[in-house]
Amino acid sequence: MKPIILTGDRPTGSLHLGHYVGSLKNRVAFQEDYRQFLIIADAQALTDHFERPEMVRDNVVQVALDYLAVGLDPGRNTCFVQSQVPALCELTSYLMNLVTVSRLQRNPTIKEEIKQKGFDESLPVGFFCYPVSQAADILAFNADAVPVGDDQNPMIEQTNEIARKFNSIYGGSYLKEVKAIVGSIGRLPGIDGKTKMSKSLGNAIFLKDSAEDLRRKVNLMFTDPNHIRVSDPGSIAGNVVFMFLDFFDSNVQELHELKQHYQKGGLGDGQLKKRLIEILDSLIAPIRHRRMQYESDIGYVRKVLEDGTREAREIASEKVAEVKRVMKLTYF
Amino acid sequence: MKPIILTGDRPTGSLHLGHYVGSLKNRVAFQEDYRQFLIIADAQALTDHFERPEMVRDNVVQVALDYLAVGLDPGRNTCFVQSQVPALCELTSYLMNLVTVSRLQRNPTIKEEIKQKGFDESLPVGFFCYPVSQAADILAFNADAVPVGDDQNPMIEQTNEIARKFNSIYGGSYLKEVKAIVGSIGRLPGIDGKTKMSKSLGNAIFLKDSAEDLRRKVNLMFTDPNHIRVSDPGSIAGNVVFMFLDFFDSNVQELHELKQHYQKGGLGDGQLKKRLIEILDSLIAPIRHRRMQYESDIGYVRKVLEDGTREAREIASEKVAEVKRVMKLTYF
Repeated sequence: MKPIILTGDRPTGSLHLGHYVGSLKNRVAFQEDYRQFLIIADAQALTDHFERPEMVRDNVVQVALDYLAVGLDPGRNTCFVQSQVPALCELTSYLMNLVTVSRLQRNPTIKEEIKQKGFDESLPVGFFCYPVSQAADILAFNADAVPVGDDQNPMIEQTNEIARKFNSIYGGSYLKEVKAIVGSIGRLPGIDGKTKMSKSLGNAIFLKDSAEDLRRKVNLMFTDPNHIRVSDPGSIAGNVVFMFLDFFDSNVQELHELKQHYQKGGLGDGQLKKRLIEILDSLIAPIRHRRMQYESDIGYVRKVLEDGTREAREIASEKVAEVKRVMKLTYF
Repeated sequence: MKPIILTGDRPTGSLHLGHYVGSLKNRVAFQEDYRQFLIIADAQALTDHFERPEMVRDNVVQVALDYLAVGLDPGRNTCFVQSQVPALCELTSYLMNLVTVSRLQRNPTIKEEIKQKGFDESLPVGFFCYPVSQAADILAFNADAVPVGDDQNPMIEQTNEIARKFNSIYGGSYLKEVKAIVGSIGRLPGIDGKTKMSKSLGNAIFLKDSAEDLRRKVNLMFTDPNHIRVSDPGSIAGNVVFMFLDFFDSNVQELHELKQHYQKGGLGDGQLKKRLIEILDSLIAPIRHRRMQYESDIGYVRKVLEDGTREAREIASEKVAEVKRVMKLTYF
C-alpha cells in the first residue's frame, strides 16, 4: 500500500503560480508514489470568511478545476469537500480537549496569521481553533506525510502532539504521527515583487489567466528603476523579472549569461520580459487548455468531487467510530 | 404544539438532593406544559474529564436512572446521549466562527468555572469553547426556554448573541433565541454546610442513598457548636439541619415554632435530625424504590436512551442540514 499524503487548499480563489510552485507541482509528482487526499477546506475558509459563504462555495469548484487542470488524476487522488465530511467536526471536538488554550496561543503560525489578518479583539473562536481542526483532517486519514512550507512546520508539531497525547491517554497507537515534507523551493513573490504572491494582494498570475493577461502582468513587473536605456548596466537584486526567471527558467546556463549581460548593459527589459512570457505561457498554456475542457464539462468535475467526498466520508467515519470506541463512547 | 425546553446534566456522578432542588423537581413539573429534551452531556463532561472516559460513560446510565426514578416520563421527554448526536459537533463548528475569543474570555460563568477548577496554563480548548457547544445543543432543538441557575444566565446571553449573529449574517431567523427560566429557589448547601452540595466535595446526599446512608449523613451535619446540653439556647444561623429544613420541611408553621423553641433552649439536636431524616426519607424512598425497579431492568433504560437519541439525532441532523443550506454549504 502506498503511503498517504493529506494536503489541500482553502477555496478562497482560483489557484495561481505561487500555488503551482509551492504545492501543485509537487503534488503532481507525489501522485506517483503516494495515495493523496486533497482536501478543499471550505469549512476552514469560513473561519475567517464566515460572512461570505457564496465566495467560498463558488471557489470549491474553481479549486477542483485547477487540480484537474494541473494534472492531478482523480484515479490516484481523493479530492473532497471538507464540509461534506461531518466526521471531521466530531473528531475535532474530541481533540480540542487535548490541547490547551495557552498552547494554541503560542503556535507561531497562528500568531503570525492573526497578526497578518489584523484580528485583535475580533479573533473568531473558529479561526483560533483551526490548528485542531487541521490536525483532525490529517489524523482522520492516517496520513503518513503532509507537504508544508517551512512556516507551517508548527502545525505539524501541533498535530503530532495531539496524536501522542491521545495515544498516551487512551492507550495504543490509534492516531498516527505524521511527517512534514518541507518544500525545498522558496516562496514565489508577487508581480509587484512583494514577498508573497496572493490573490488578496492583487499581485497574482492565475493558472487560468489568458495569454493576454499573462503578457500584461509580466509587463507590469518592476525591473531596475535605474536601467533606463538598453545600454545602461542593470541590477539583478530586487528585479522581479529575474526573480521569476530564477523560479521558472530551466536553462540555468543561459539564465546565468543573461544576468551577466544585463549587469554589464546592453540587454533590454523588453527582451527579458519576452523570455519570461514565453516560459510562463509554455507552462500555463496546457493547464489553461485542460481547464477549459473541464469547464465545459462541470458535471464531470462535480462527479469527481462527489465520488472523492463519498470515499473520504467513509474513511473518516470509520476513524471516528474507532476513536469513539477507544474513548468508550459507545452505548447502543 | 408545546413549547420546547432543553436541559440536562453532565454525567459525572449520580444525581443528588442539590440536583433535585435545583432542577429535577422543576423538570417533573415542566413536563406537563413543555416538550422537554434532556441531554446527558457526556461529550461536554469530557472537556474537563478527558482522561476518565470510563467514569463518564458509566455515569450516563446512572443519570438516566435518576431521571426515570424522579418521575421524568420517557413518553413526554426526549432523553438522549450527546456524543451520539454528531450533528451537534457540526453545528458547534460553524457557530465557533460567530464568537470571538475575547468574548468567551469575558463570559463570567466560564471565568468562574476556570477559577474553581484551578485551570490556568492547563485550560483545555474544549472546555474553553464549551459555551459554544452548549449554544449548539440549545439551538439545534429550537428550544424556547432553558431552566438555569442565576449564575448561568451569561450562557443564555451567549447563546442568543450567537443566534442573532447567525440570523443577521445569513438572513432570516433560522436560529431561535431562547428564554432563561431562572429558578426561584436558592442553592442547597452540602451536609458540611458548604455553599454547594457536590459529589466532588463529598458532601452530597444522593437520590439513590439507602435509608441507612441518609440517616448517617444527616447525623454528620453540624448544628450549633455551642448548643451542648438540650436545655442550652441554640442558634439557627449556620445550623445545617435548619438550612435543610428550610428547603424540605413543608410545614412552615411547625418549622417556625421549632426554630423559636431551639433558640430558647430545650430542643435537642437529635429530635431535630430525626425530623429531617423522616422528611428526607419520605422524599427519597419512592425515588429509591423506582430506581431499584429500573436498575433491575437496565435493558429498558438503554432502550429509553436509544429511542431518545434516535429522535434527537433526526431533529439535530435536520437542523444542521438547514443551517448548511443557509450557509450555501451544499454541493451534491
